[in-house]
Amino acid sequence: MANGDLFIIGGNEDKKKQKELLSKFVELSGTREGKIGILTTATNYPLEVGEEYCELFRELGAADCVHFHIDSRELAEGTAFTDQLKEISSLFITGGDQVRLTSILGGTKFYNRLHKCWKRGMLIGGTSAGAAVMSRLMIMSSKTLGENEQIFIEMGSGFGFLEDVIIDQHFSQRARFTRLMNAIAHNPQIIGIGIDENTAIWVKERGDIFEVLGEHTVTVFDGKKLSYVDVAMANDNNDITISGVRLHTLARGYVFDLINRELIIETGRDNDEN
Amino acid sequence: MANGDLFIIGGNEDKKKQKELLSKFVELSGTREGKIGILTTATNYPLEVGEEYCELFRELGAADCVHFHIDSRELAEGTAFTDQLKEISSLFITGGDQVRLTSILGGTKFYNRLHKCWKRGMLIGGTSAGAAVMSRLMIMSSKTLGENEQIFIEMGSGFGFLEDVIIDQHFSQRARFTRLMNAIAHNPQIIGIGIDENTAIWVKERGDIFEVLGEHTVTVFDGKKLSYVDVAMANDNNDITISGVRLHTLARGYVFDLINRELIIETGRDNDEN
Repeated sequence: MANGDLFIIGGNEDKKKQKELLSKFVELSGTREGKIGILTTATNYPLEVGEEYCELFRELGAADCVHFHIDSRELAEGTAFTDQLKEISSLFITGGDQVRLTSILGGTKFYNRLHKCWKRGMLIGGTSAGAAVMSRLMIMSSKTLGENEQIFIEMGSGFGFLEDVIIDQHFSQRARFTRLMNAIAHNPQIIGIGIDENTAIWVKERGDIFEVLGEHTVTVFDGKKLSYVDVAMANDNNDITISGVRLHTLARGYVFDLINRELIIETGRDNDEN
Repeated sequence: MANGDLFIIGGNEDKKKQKELLSKFVELSGTREGKIGILTTATNYPLEVGEEYCELFRELGAADCVHFHIDSRELAEGTAFTDQLKEISSLFITGGDQVRLTSILGGTKFYNRLHKCWKRGMLIGGTSAGAAVMSRLMIMSSKTLGENEQIFIEMGSGFGFLEDVIIDQHFSQRARFTRLMNAIAHNPQIIGIGIDENTAIWVKERGDIFEVLGEHTVTVFDGKKLSYVDVAMANDNNDITISGVRLHTLARGYVFDLINRELIIETGRDNDEN
């Protein structure tokens, strides 16, 4: 079977009004055939956060939830939670710190079983830290240091559901343009995807395309055809010069082809006149 | 004679430490042959601002300054200030509100004479509002309205020293990425140039190229090869989708070709090893 879809939210999704994104996630979960798993490893408030999402998913039509309250590698190596992966049709990864996710779960039995489930078609969703962790290469953290506001970005290994992609979340709201450009400068083969808050990408067709949902926009940085980048040079300052990045800003309804790195116009947003 | 160079600062230039940018402006002014004019029309504090720049320019080696304290169209139509344009070798346009500059000076005798002086080679510098006003098409103001943070941009006519360019200032510091993308979406033939604070572009060779100076970076958005933009469509939301913008981020020392819209590598930053 093909890899499951991914539902990647840029953080701060609406939980009080229309709940468009969470509602769509429940719909995609096809909940009649299974429960929704909630993975709270990223957060320091796993009980509160787990309970909140469980209530929301039930309210939106989910049959039931399973709370994966895994806060140690010991638990992640055990059978209790790993076995429960069989019961769920989708997993939702909450926000918090993505380094907690990778450091507690990376390489464990739970992680390996989760990958198997996903390869057999399980839908995986995530928000904020749960969004950042989706890709093979992940932004762990960044610091702005010193008078000249130099950005240091720590990269690490994410969960690897997406190859050749870096996800950045809270994108417009936290003004992460420079941070994602910096990541692309160091990894030009990678596509940088900046997802705004209360906005999501739904990755489908074995990861070949994604559709934009939600309130704001998704910004795509494609470094493949860079004409110049100076990260490997000795510089008298630390600002990076990078030339020829291809840029796309996509609102809801638009579909992007991750293979050919192009907006798909034909299947884009419905025109109001139709 | 050829058009004068332009020295365009993204605002908040260092006035207390190295004063690199103001110092370079004085150097380019070639002050032995004339005075530096200071145009304070943009600001509501013309006396204080005029005095401050005059002191700075003298300290940095300028022979003398002429304060163009023009705060009405009447003064701009008169001969007093217009005649004084003969005495100066460069003009520096201070910050404030660019709409004051265009509404008070646009189309007046002073404006027309200034254009003549520039066409005969007078150097023109400006910071913040004095940077925004440099191009033919100018961002007058923008507002972020409503729950979904929709951006409304008011465009107007600037002083027209640069064609096919829009300047945005305080670029990284005020997170104006979306604002400049929006301007490009509506005017894809235009090059958007976002200049950071305490950073400048020195436009030379009749406006064909610019060099980056100062502390941070300059971001260039080229919409010429856009593959798609939906500003003219009826949409169910107001976020713009735009695909295929070419993007460059340039640190100090790099030179950009405004005609071919490419970084000039050969004449770029000096390599430390040379």
